[in-house]
Amino acid sequence: MEEEGVVLLGFWSSPYVTRVKIALEEKGIQFLYKEEENIFLGKSPLLLEANPIYKKVPVLIHNGKPICESLNILEYIDQVWKDKFPILPHHPYERARSRFWIDFFDKMIYDIGRRMWASKGEDQEEAKQEFLKSLKLLEEELGDKPYFGGDQFGLLDIALIPFSCRFYTYETFCKFNLEKICPKLMKWVNKCNERESVSKALPNPYKVYDFVLEVKKMLGIE
Amino acid sequence: MEEEGVVLLGFWSSPYVTRVKIALEEKGIQFLYKEEENIFLGKSPLLLEANPIYKKVPVLIHNGKPICESLNILEYIDQVWKDKFPILPHHPYERARSRFWIDFFDKMIYDIGRRMWASKGEDQEEAKQEFLKSLKLLEEELGDKPYFGGDQFGLLDIALIPFSCRFYTYETFCKFNLEKICPKLMKWVNKCNERESVSKALPNPYKVYDFVLEVKKMLGIE
Repeated sequence: MEEEGVVLLGFWSSPYVTRVKIALEEKGIQFLYKEEENIFLGKSPLLLEANPIYKKVPVLIHNGKPICESLNILEYIDQVWKDKFPILPHHPYERARSRFWIDFFDKMIYDIGRRMWASKGEDQEEAKQEFLKSLKLLEEELGDKPYFGGDQFGLLDIALIPFSCRFYTYETFCKFNLEKICPKLMKWVNKCNERESVSKALPNPYKVYDFVLEVKKMLGIE
Repeated sequence: MEEEGVVLLGFWSSPYVTRVKIALEEKGIQFLYKEEENIFLGKSPLLLEANPIYKKVPVLIHNGKPICESLNILEYIDQVWKDKFPILPHHPYERARSRFWIDFFDKMIYDIGRRMWASKGEDQEEAKQEFLKSLKLLEEELGDKPYFGGDQFGLLDIALIPFSCRFYTYETFCKFNLEKICPKLMKWVNKCNERESVSKALPNPYKVYDFVLEVKKMLGIE
């Protein structure tokens, strides 16, 4: 791979890509962003070469070497650029806890998130209940702290905040109000959005909603 | 949680538990092993308390604090007991590569492994082909090195070797011979088994096969 320096292959609405953007921004790392323009029509040759197994964004290419999978990329970034803004918690137990919750959220959100906008009736209601139950578990983990790790914005915040720009979509399709249901979590969302790294990286929730409508139409889902 | 020192909650046939046993053994860490005796009838109160979200083994309890998920536990062990036998590769890129392959294998094996012994006909054949394709990718990653990381037994070896005691089950149900199909990988299996940490931790393949037969019977699968 001939890419020099730091290159990020991404797609604008992917929360996994947003994770990497936030981390690079917080670390102050200059990078070249390459958008996968036609993600539904075909992947770019560079993406296919960089991630032949999953063919998915994000991929971080650092001096010609590709690193795949968002959490993996965050850990890589933190280890390579260790001098500025530590992403991972210092204490092994806190580190393990962050990784646990990210894994929990990642396992849950893929299926449930989709069911909240792609299904109807009972299936949608079930997905909604599971989603809210999971958010409440996260809210409990957050407690009264400003960030998940305490006073420092860190790994778990970076991993979770990108999904907040999908909340409007979920709220609209499933008719709920997160301000009422998870007030502490929404306070955390606002707090994170005060950071330039976050506000710059997160796509507009209305644009995400329009995109989901488009995807539904494309897939023939009413 | 009142458990002192290092306690491992496990189940004998779980490859994820075996990962942790190997790591603890390589690090020379004394630990108390607690077998989940009645995993099919009900989980122990200690397991339910230690891992209320997934209710799954392995859980490592260190000075009363539970750490869940096998890969998470390996990273924790490596960070806490850092003086002896480094588990994670030193270089960030090698570290990312190891994590990538573990994630790939973990995502693949759960579904495919089960389909190889629980299904028949076309579905079984499809699972077998996918399994062999994945093993060949791993063999390619291994190349002619003695271990995945080179000369040092490390993270990727610890994560993958526990599954080798299921190979006999897969070979018997799906009628293939891994010695012929993946000779380099099988050489690696033998090499790993020369280590005391591995030979002590891995269950007997015939016992695993008998257990799978028992589980099939219990689930009413012919």
